[in-house]
Amino acid sequence: MQSIIDEIARDMMAIENKGEVASYIPQLAKVDPNQFAISVALTNGEVYQAGCADTLFSIQSISKVFTLTLALGKLGDNIWHRVGREPSGDPFNSIVQLEHEHGKPRNPFINAGAITIADLIMQGHAPKEVLAEILHFIRYVADDDSIAIDEKVAHSELKTGARNASLAHFMASFGHFENPVEKVLGTYFHHCSIAMNTTNLAKAGLFLANNGVNPVTGYTVVSAQRAKRINALMLMCGHYDGSGEFAFRVGLPGKSGVGGGILAVAPGKASIGVWSPGLDKIGNSKLGTMALELLANKTGWSIFGKESC
Amino acid sequence: MQSIIDEIARDMMAIENKGEVASYIPQLAKVDPNQFAISVALTNGEVYQAGCADTLFSIQSISKVFTLTLALGKLGDNIWHRVGREPSGDPFNSIVQLEHEHGKPRNPFINAGAITIADLIMQGHAPKEVLAEILHFIRYVADDDSIAIDEKVAHSELKTGARNASLAHFMASFGHFENPVEKVLGTYFHHCSIAMNTTNLAKAGLFLANNGVNPVTGYTVVSAQRAKRINALMLMCGHYDGSGEFAFRVGLPGKSGVGGGILAVAPGKASIGVWSPGLDKIGNSKLGTMALELLANKTGWSIFGKESC
Amino acid sequence: MQSIIDEIARDMMAIENKGEVASYIPQLAKVDPNQFAISVALTNGEVYQAGCADTLFSIQSISKVFTLTLALGKLGDNIWHRVGREPSGDPFNSIVQLEHEHGKPRNPFINAGAITIADLIMQGHAPKEVLAEILHFIRYVADDDSIAIDEKVAHSELKTGARNASLAHFMASFGHFENPVEKVLGTYFHHCSIAMNTTNLAKAGLFLANNGVNPVTGYTVVSAQRAKRINALMLMCGHYDGSGEFAFRVGLPGKSGVGGGILAVAPGKASIGVWSPGLDKIGNSKLGTMALELLANKTGWSIFGKESC
Amino acid sequence: MQSIIDEIARDMMAIENKGEVASYIPQLAKVDPNQFAISVALTNGEVYQAGCADTLFSIQSISKVFTLTLALGKLGDNIWHRVGREPSGDPFNSIVQLEHEHGKPRNPFINAGAITIADLIMQGHAPKEVLAEILHFIRYVADDDSIAIDEKVAHSELKTGARNASLAHFMASFGHFENPVEKVLGTYFHHCSIAMNTTNLAKAGLFLANNGVNPVTGYTVVSAQRAKRINALMLMCGHYDGSGEFAFRVGLPGKSGVGGGILAVAPGKASIGVWSPGLDKIGNSKLGTMALELLANKTGWSIFGKESC
Repeated sequence: MQSIIDEIARDMMAIENKGEVASYIPQLAKVDPNQFAISVALTNGEVYQAGCADTLFSIQSISKVFTLTLALGKLGDNIWHRVGREPSGDPFNSIVQLEHEHGKPRNPFINAGAITIADLIMQGHAPKEVLAEILHFIRYVADDDSIAIDEKVAHSELKTGARNASLAHFMASFGHFENPVEKVLGTYFHHCSIAMNTTNLAKAGLFLANNGVNPVTGYTVVSAQRAKRINALMLMCGHYDGSGEFAFRVGLPGKSGVGGGILAVAPGKASIGVWSPGLDKIGNSKLGTMALELLANKTGWSIFGKESC
Repeated sequence: MQSIIDEIARDMMAIENKGEVASYIPQLAKVDPNQFAISVALTNGEVYQAGCADTLFSIQSISKVFTLTLALGKLGDNIWHRVGREPSGDPFNSIVQLEHEHGKPRNPFINAGAITIADLIMQGHAPKEVLAEILHFIRYVADDDSIAIDEKVAHSELKTGARNASLAHFMASFGHFENPVEKVLGTYFHHCSIAMNTTNLAKAGLFLANNGVNPVTGYTVVSAQRAKRINALMLMCGHYDGSGEFAFRVGLPGKSGVGGGILAVAPGKASIGVWSPGLDKIGNSKLGTMALELLANKTGWSIFGKESC
Repeated sequence: MQSIIDEIARDMMAIENKGEVASYIPQLAKVDPNQFAISVALTNGEVYQAGCADTLFSIQSISKVFTLTLALGKLGDNIWHRVGREPSGDPFNSIVQLEHEHGKPRNPFINAGAITIADLIMQGHAPKEVLAEILHFIRYVADDDSIAIDEKVAHSELKTGARNASLAHFMASFGHFENPVEKVLGTYFHHCSIAMNTTNLAKAGLFLANNGVNPVTGYTVVSAQRAKRINALMLMCGHYDGSGEFAFRVGLPGKSGVGGGILAVAPGKASIGVWSPGLDKIGNSKLGTMALELLANKTGWSIFGKESC
Repeated sequence: MQSIIDEIARDMMAIENKGEVASYIPQLAKVDPNQFAISVALTNGEVYQAGCADTLFSIQSISKVFTLTLALGKLGDNIWHRVGREPSGDPFNSIVQLEHEHGKPRNPFINAGAITIADLIMQGHAPKEVLAEILHFIRYVADDDSIAIDEKVAHSELKTGARNASLAHFMASFGHFENPVEKVLGTYFHHCSIAMNTTNLAKAGLFLANNGVNPVTGYTVVSAQRAKRINALMLMCGHYDGSGEFAFRVGLPGKSGVGGGILAVAPGKASIGVWSPGLDKIGNSKLGTMALELLANKTGWSIFGKESC
């Protein structure tokens, strides 16, 4: 495994065009695109890493996997009254679909869906308390108490978050929100600003690769059925309007963030964190996706069958 | 396995509300909804069946799996210039998306995409010749020379196919079609009218469960990589706007048809054909989906992890 | 003229189903639907009125005619870089069109367009100052210094204005806003809450019927060309998605508000204010529209030709 | 009047960029863009003309004014069950709106609406008979028996009419059509291919300027109310998604065609035919629109008030 990921990291660093760093969040636009990291946590407890696997980055939308898991833990399948389970299908239609579907977002991984999940988790509590709970949960699943919010990124998002504010007010116009729009947005922007490294990420996703149980700590995070279903949602909706492409090329459940990170899950085998800040046109890490495609081919971990050798 | 599917068949027949038979194709509206069949073909060559597994039904959109496979064989990855690989995301937007995306359908399994595949396969040949080729291919992968087109259904579709005619002319208005619209539609309507039973279907899908090779006949139908990718497309787009739900509940690549059939693939393990003509609101077989959910739970075949027992 | 409008007022009060009062703004929902008023100000300076023409009501969207006029005075044709001049065509697509057209609203009379006009007028000033200027302008064109904002309605709107907040943040996400979203919304909600009676309204619209000059005060409000063009915009876009119907039935430029008022202009002849709080399905005053249709028929004022008698 | 239009014709011919000739209908693409004609028929019977007013051109969508008039004569207000009276609001959404509004086109002047009108007029008759009736009607209102269909253009349209075929089949999929789709399309393509000169056009529109009565022949074509309403529809919807712009600049009811012709009506005063084959981006005659703007300014004929001089 170590030699596989060392080779992948070497191949990735050799690629000249590493994609474009996300520009609309000022703090993210400053990140050096010339970085790559990969960490693989096996269900047997072994962890392998290559590249700058200790460098912290903004997990952004990857945080949605953890808030979804938390919401399911608190409210169970009741959350599905507020958010759907289908891919959204169009880069441009988040708000169009919201209009046709009366303010119910298509899935928990598009922005409107994750904002809804934030509203569901809050249950009348202050953003500060809720963020403490989210952080506590992520530290627990990742088994690392140093994980924290990057306040500079959070502040940077708040100032440029007009589109998300529009989505939130739009949903609120259907009477769906239980908490004030501003507080929900504050919670959302902050949990997207959590900083982790790829090894944190790989460890944090291990329960999804191991039927809901973290094999290292022994904690049962969710039931086996729920782990399976979160994986299904990640595969279907985890890469925005590039989810089909990711399934086609990589064949693993995964969730990307505009900070350049991807969490991928090989059920029964491993949880993988990759990071490279350059994005493709859809907004997914360019090298991260390529690295996962190589890894899936070399290991035969695709959930859709083995590659011929 | 036999006892598992016998139990499933019993459970299914005991359910009172078996869904609504598709009404917009007159010939399909006549089918008795009170029927259920399941066939499981293992990659070791064993075949199990329960219910009316010898009854022929109209495979409808399931035929799109085979025309896609055929098109890939003839034209390789060139087909992706004409058709995408992403879920469509909206029950109502087939033509809306076509407009925004300049006549390029989202994937090969929505109607517009499958009509495009028909145009690609034709290459200037007459519908009769092309249909002979499609039939030949399906007989070959299913290892059954008796498979044929139900002409009554084909005729019934032609008369009510205004929406598909609209989609085809719409795409043609972008200059994309290589063959006359009427001939492409004729080809499309006829290959949707192929009749099979669940055992035919299970056998015909075996190559997708076995890295591209039919384990019984030994024929290499496609490469292992291509089998994997067709499975990915089936998972992402195989159940219209219910694909997310099917992945969430069943967790297997599958393709449904409005005739009530579903072909599902458990990579490395089995190919499954189910049939029950009653549909849910999205247009997928109601009992077929439930049966596959039970089967995946009982066997642990979900590609997203095992159910706890 | 007096006998014509007396008869119209009688006919209107005799109609049982007077439509539904707007329910989404709590303060407006309290208004008694059983009211009707009409005032006709001729370009020769004569004013006729019938029904409760002294009763104040919330002019709501009718205020957009005055803010548009004000914006044209301050910025001239530069405003057309920020807002279009075409009907929007769909009750449901305000935000859909905004998305396709990159945050540029279709015209100044849909909500997004009027919010944009508010942003243009503000030019960095505080809402209080801007509202004083708007009020000053309306008092000037109506020649009545008692016209004021109904603070209860303004407060009621602010609390329920989630949809407008969504539109404003959405446009802001394209970088179009010069002033903070909250301040623009405050300005917009307040100018919609101006209270007037039908005689105020008829007088305030006289400059549009008289080539830009108020014939009573002698003030030149706008150029003749500009008056003509504002009338054209009112005809094309003044009644939301019922603009075609209003042109078809009434044949006069007009602007309605959800408070039940309508300002109509018969170029060269008269300015008319009508009010009845019950609305049709589109959101235009039911009796107000009927009264204007009768008036246009009886006077032959339609801009599209005379009715046969 | 003669000196006014002579000056306009001179000004127009001096403009270098005369717009782009419609390219999607091969036969129209061959027309020399360097042509301009204007004819003004006054309600007192006088006719003035300048430029190449005897040159025949393809009236295209202008024919929709006459088929609408014919349909109203045959079926009265029943036609409004099949077609709406609102502007469509978006160049790209003809089929999107059709989807949301269940196959009922927004108005009789967009293609889907005019195809619906063709279906309504046919009443089971053969295209040949219906076309004879349409031609007869246009010859009657224009008082010129030489008006005919340009068969080359009709043939050219039939071959390139995929988008219109798509619209027609789409509407048919809602079960709205009374006649076979192919026959309705044949009728539609042929009546769009009628050839007229600007003087024909000006005379043919006179009844709309004169309360429904042709002042020359004395024929009552429609009632005064109906003439008024057709004018309203022309103003609201006569220039596709440039209708607002045309009302804003010209201020007269008008209907354009992609052949470069425009019929405009000054109620009570005149009917005007202009032609110049170069189009603006929306698809309306560039010089034709400019000429009408000049004419409206010089004559004060705008229905929205007089220009200051």
